[in-house]
Amino acid sequence: MHERLAADPAREVEETLLSRPGLRIGRIVSSGQASPPGHWYDQTEDEFVLLVAGEAGLEIAGEAVPRRLRPGDWVHLPAHCRHRVAWTQAEPPTLWFVIHHAPAAP
Amino acid sequence: MHERLAADPAREVEETLLSRPGLRIGRIVSSGQASPPGHWYDQTEDEFVLLVAGEAGLEIAGEAVPRRLRPGDWVHLPAHCRHRVAWTQAEPPTLWFVIHHAPAAP
Repeated sequence: MHERLAADPAREVEETLLSRPGLRIGRIVSSGQASPPGHWYDQTEDEFVLLVAGEAGLEIAGEAVPRRLRPGDWVHLPAHCRHRVAWTQAEPPTLWFVIHHAPAAP
Repeated sequence: MHERLAADPAREVEETLLSRPGLRIGRIVSSGQASPPGHWYDQTEDEFVLLVAGEAGLEIAGEAVPRRLRPGDWVHLPAHCRHRVAWTQAEPPTLWFVIHHAPAAP
């Protein structure tokens, strides 16, 4: 719990902290990475994204400019809400917690 | 998402950000509050606790001293893992995100 963050300037580090049917909590350490140009995430599950440290730009399809996330900011992305990471702060690294969960019943 | 935190020195402020069957994500702003003396939480659901800002002491039944949580620290509390908040930093306020979820099938 108190272990140091394994930031790696060369890549984004993601680890799963908890995994249950219909629920996965992950922690991501970014150090300047962004989604590949033109790449959009399009997921079958909902995702709750929380920025804990650093800063990042989150692009959401249909929004004119990326949302600028600072510590404590969060976004709920319903399944198939296309999004991409426009940029992340490298130093100190950007820390995210993400909660992937089953979408609401239709 | 970017709204200012509604810290209230007189009380702990909790709000539910997302609620689904078997899943609830909440945000808590503490400003010096602690659990009442001798009060232990004993919950029927698992709880994933993440400290985002400030600092807090989390007491877990059976552990000799409270865990000192700093930003980015997290604890997973299985259902019925008795715990209490020993102390929280008042200024700047302490920000927690909590994820209550259905326990793993036995």
